[in-house]
Amino acid sequence: MPYARISLHRGKSPQYLRALADGIHQAMVECFAVPSADRFQLIHQHEPGEMIFDRDYAGGPRSDDFTLVAIQTGRPRSAEAKAALYARMAELLEASPGLAPADLLVVVVDGKMEDWSFSHGRQASQLPPEALRP
Amino acid sequence: MPYARISLHRGKSPQYLRALADGIHQAMVECFAVPSADRFQLIHQHEPGEMIFDRDYAGGPRSDDFTLVAIQTGRPRSAEAKAALYARMAELLEASPGLAPADLLVVVVDGKMEDWSFSHGRQASQLPPEALRP
Amino acid sequence: MPYARISLHRGKSPQYLRALADGIHQAMVECFAVPSADRFQLIHQHEPGEMIFDRDYAGGPRSDDFTLVAIQTGRPRSAEAKAALYARMAELLEASPGLAPADLLVVVVDGKMEDWSFSHGRQASQLPPEALRP
Repeated sequence: MPYARISLHRGKSPQYLRALADGIHQAMVECFAVPSADRFQLIHQHEPGEMIFDRDYAGGPRSDDFTLVAIQTGRPRSAEAKAALYARMAELLEASPGLAPADLLVVVVDGKMEDWSFSHGRQASQLPPEALRP
Repeated sequence: MPYARISLHRGKSPQYLRALADGIHQAMVECFAVPSADRFQLIHQHEPGEMIFDRDYAGGPRSDDFTLVAIQTGRPRSAEAKAALYARMAELLEASPGLAPADLLVVVVDGKMEDWSFSHGRQASQLPPEALRP
Repeated sequence: MPYARISLHRGKSPQYLRALADGIHQAMVECFAVPSADRFQLIHQHEPGEMIFDRDYAGGPRSDDFTLVAIQTGRPRSAEAKAALYARMAELLEASPGLAPADLLVVVVDGKMEDWSFSHGRQASQLPPEALRP
């Protein structure tokens, strides 16, 4: 039930973008218990000047590969689950597509199941449980 | 006081985009008691590869017309109001511009009036009530 | 720890965009006690038809320069701090780049420190306090 909005500079290959999205989703599957098929991601590719970020604040050094991942969930996650997500996502993205852990910023916003409608105008909280299984 | 961020693939006509935005707003007027003039919508048109979504999870089948509507409100809505919004939005968008209900995903995030400034640097919660009427 | 998503019509100069982002950040430094180096901003430039907004609701009159600033924080702010932010941001942006206060809409969403990872897969709430200082 989460969706992710992924922002980075334009210029990466389709393969890079796909690997980036794959790693972000895989971390959510592993650490947020998101079903593998529950995948909704939007990529925003920014022009030079459209991403303004400090190169060193609370981490870094950040490069032009800086990537901001904003996740909206469908139910609250514990602080521990979030900590695990951040660590795993950085690890997976370093392996593929090769994003430096310094370049990954992640923000999570917790939501509720009633806040979601996947399709057909039906509220997620009113779906039969089997509809939301992996 | 809500605003909506509407994501879909690039390629639709201006008329389609306008009808899409009209239907989304009309559902909010009817089900969230939003004044008709209280309308703020942003459309993000994505290139191929920038929208990654499961075709069948918890609904569908989704097509390349898949549309994700993210709504930020200015006061909390009940689960019932949200359920009504999802159903009405799917109905209106199927009528015009002809979006299949399977292709509509909606996510609502509840906010507070103090979180908003419409203009002139004034907080919405400090406006005279008549300023927020239809 | 906040980040801002800034939406406006395409067509402004790089200097205008930078001044806009500068003023938005400066208001957050002054009114939200954000460290000066704690700066993360994304600019979305929209084509005609991609921004739909009422010209007069609860303020205005809005022009084609209409700018929507969506801020996600890393800890809750009081209603008073938000009121101060809106007023100061309108003032700063009117001075530079010359944005009419009528054209500025701001929305804040409060978050928690555990919701953030700045880099290296580390949760912000687990960083040593000196890492988050100005």
